[in-house]
Amino acid sequence: MTAELTMSRRIRRTAYTDRVEGMGVTGFSVVNHMILPKSFQSSVEEDYWHLKEHVQLWDVSCQRQIQIVGLDATRLVQLMTPRDIGAMKVGECLYIPIIDQNAGLINDPVLLKISSEKYWLSIADSDLLLYALGLTIGFKLNAVVSEADVWTLSIQGPKAEDLVSDLFGDQIRKIGFFKFDWIDFKGTKQLLARSGYSRQGGFEIYLEGKSLGPDLWDLVWEAGQIYNIKPGAPNIIERVEGGLFSYGNEMTRENNPLEIGLKKFCSLDGSIEYIGREALEKIALDGETQQLRGMIFDGPRCPTCSEPWPVLLDGKKIGQLTSGMYSPRLKANVAVGMIVRDFWEYKGALEVNCLDSLKRNGIISAFPLK
Amino acid sequence: MTAELTMSRRIRRTAYTDRVEGMGVTGFSVVNHMILPKSFQSSVEEDYWHLKEHVQLWDVSCQRQIQIVGLDATRLVQLMTPRDIGAMKVGECLYIPIIDQNAGLINDPVLLKISSEKYWLSIADSDLLLYALGLTIGFKLNAVVSEADVWTLSIQGPKAEDLVSDLFGDQIRKIGFFKFDWIDFKGTKQLLARSGYSRQGGFEIYLEGKSLGPDLWDLVWEAGQIYNIKPGAPNIIERVEGGLFSYGNEMTRENNPLEIGLKKFCSLDGSIEYIGREALEKIALDGETQQLRGMIFDGPRCPTCSEPWPVLLDGKKIGQLTSGMYSPRLKANVAVGMIVRDFWEYKGALEVNCLDSLKRNGIISAFPLK
Repeated sequence: MTAELTMSRRIRRTAYTDRVEGMGVTGFSVVNHMILPKSFQSSVEEDYWHLKEHVQLWDVSCQRQIQIVGLDATRLVQLMTPRDIGAMKVGECLYIPIIDQNAGLINDPVLLKISSEKYWLSIADSDLLLYALGLTIGFKLNAVVSEADVWTLSIQGPKAEDLVSDLFGDQIRKIGFFKFDWIDFKGTKQLLARSGYSRQGGFEIYLEGKSLGPDLWDLVWEAGQIYNIKPGAPNIIERVEGGLFSYGNEMTRENNPLEIGLKKFCSLDGSIEYIGREALEKIALDGETQQLRGMIFDGPRCPTCSEPWPVLLDGKKIGQLTSGMYSPRLKANVAVGMIVRDFWEYKGALEVNCLDSLKRNGIISAFPLK
Repeated sequence: MTAELTMSRRIRRTAYTDRVEGMGVTGFSVVNHMILPKSFQSSVEEDYWHLKEHVQLWDVSCQRQIQIVGLDATRLVQLMTPRDIGAMKVGECLYIPIIDQNAGLINDPVLLKISSEKYWLSIADSDLLLYALGLTIGFKLNAVVSEADVWTLSIQGPKAEDLVSDLFGDQIRKIGFFKFDWIDFKGTKQLLARSGYSRQGGFEIYLEGKSLGPDLWDLVWEAGQIYNIKPGAPNIIERVEGGLFSYGNEMTRENNPLEIGLKKFCSLDGSIEYIGREALEKIALDGETQQLRGMIFDGPRCPTCSEPWPVLLDGKKIGQLTSGMYSPRLKANVAVGMIVRDFWEYKGALEVNCLDSLKRNGIISAFPLK
């Protein structure tokens, strides 16, 4: 099924939408009430190869920044996540699961510590601002919660470091993975992080000030010509192969952080207090009943996964896949989804039902898929 | 600009999406992380005429139901809205603004009182569940907040009552506006309300149980053939002419309920306690600085409003329009937006800048536009 996205002010345009349209965008998604450009004139397979060889410019402004400022800012963030942020330093990025009182996942943002009493949460697709606001009011915290005027531009691919270095100087090469520093752009200080939603390396510029967007896009675009830059987007083949998961696809409020492999990021010894601690400790004690796994499966190219695909063994459902696509590198379909505990290490053949009339056989495989 | 909506599990399908696809849907929007069908093979103008003359079937499942149950359910709902719900009876629907501590609008749902300790909030496009959950945890309320397994099917148009009566009996004619009753469907009790997002009259079936969706769609569709039923969607021309506003379009967290004309629904005398009361009382005392108004303006057909259109008097901005479209009935463009206080009653010509290269002149006009 394909249909056009009907536009309105409610589907918010970004600082870069004019530029993206100028480059012939052909597909959109909507994340956080905002446009996410998903495709241009080339196919998802062409984009995949290009991303692995060159450099791409992505408008990921939909990764909205929920800003939390105040004397209780650290306390509020810690209340929302089982990950211990006590030792976090200014200049660091942390991937943090946010959970409810039953340990159900509400979001899985990247947390940036801007100063001792100021954080940005770079969110996936749910209104985390409203949860943080409800907690702030209910617990009477000294914190101001807002959506920052930030428009993230992602520069991904093996040539990203050379390109960003050409633009902002060699010192950017010293920025470690999931660390950030500040760069100068048109008389403003802007946050540059070594991060991004691919496994090919790259940077994200957290541009503060919407009106600066077109100039930043043009600057990177022009300097990128010698690196064969293209407009792009998070690539489903690349992210599935690399084991990058998506809130709303691989996980919802029905899932807990242990199911998505985040036990290492969860404080389970009672040393810190957070919402959902008791529920999460109980799940850890019992052992989670399902976990995300990769799969490689044959048959003709799979369709788009818009509803979970059952995974079957001898006709019995043992899991479901939630994102998948044909990989031109592996010459097979790749996917990710929840598999029930007894089959995490199963090496034999499984059947995937892609909800079309075809049956496809595959195997569970560790990330990165290869 | 037109581009395809890229599908994924995160853009949730509804109980009726299979049927909607079967009827040749051509345009989607996304509301509450869910598909809202917006157009079929006919134009928005053809749909407008049809809606005013016949009956349409709309998949508005994206109006998610946030269910609040428990001893503190009433207290939680009252905390979130300035509208006094103390006298609300089971079987009633109330349109309630939900505001934050600064009186900024978070959502504008229809509240349904299912029983003395159970409510549904039929929401516009923001994750009100997360706000209610944060408040419940912070204030330690005895309430369970969840998204109900409800898939609203809207039957709108002048022939809706005859059609619904054919299906569920003449007693449905006695249901008053913004009241609900229960009907039998395949051995289940289902909620039927006289409501809907048009001014043409109609009903909404709050179907509980996703798997029942296709059968309900088919039942209404088949019985509707003698009434010239068509698949449809909220129609921008009809709703703008009728003064029906849209959260995310006409109002955001930047706006307060007085600006959207809801003073009559706001308790401003201190008789009830709610979040944002002091801020809202102060705004009421000072007088709101802008309010929604309708406009009719000439010139060629306006484009889709995906960013606010400035309204100018002698080159000076006096407001902005946020939804607009050409009305084939009025043979002019119609729109709605915020106008600053000094010009609410202005009768003269104003200029509308639709962000294309054309200038159009129009006048402020009361709802319904005519």
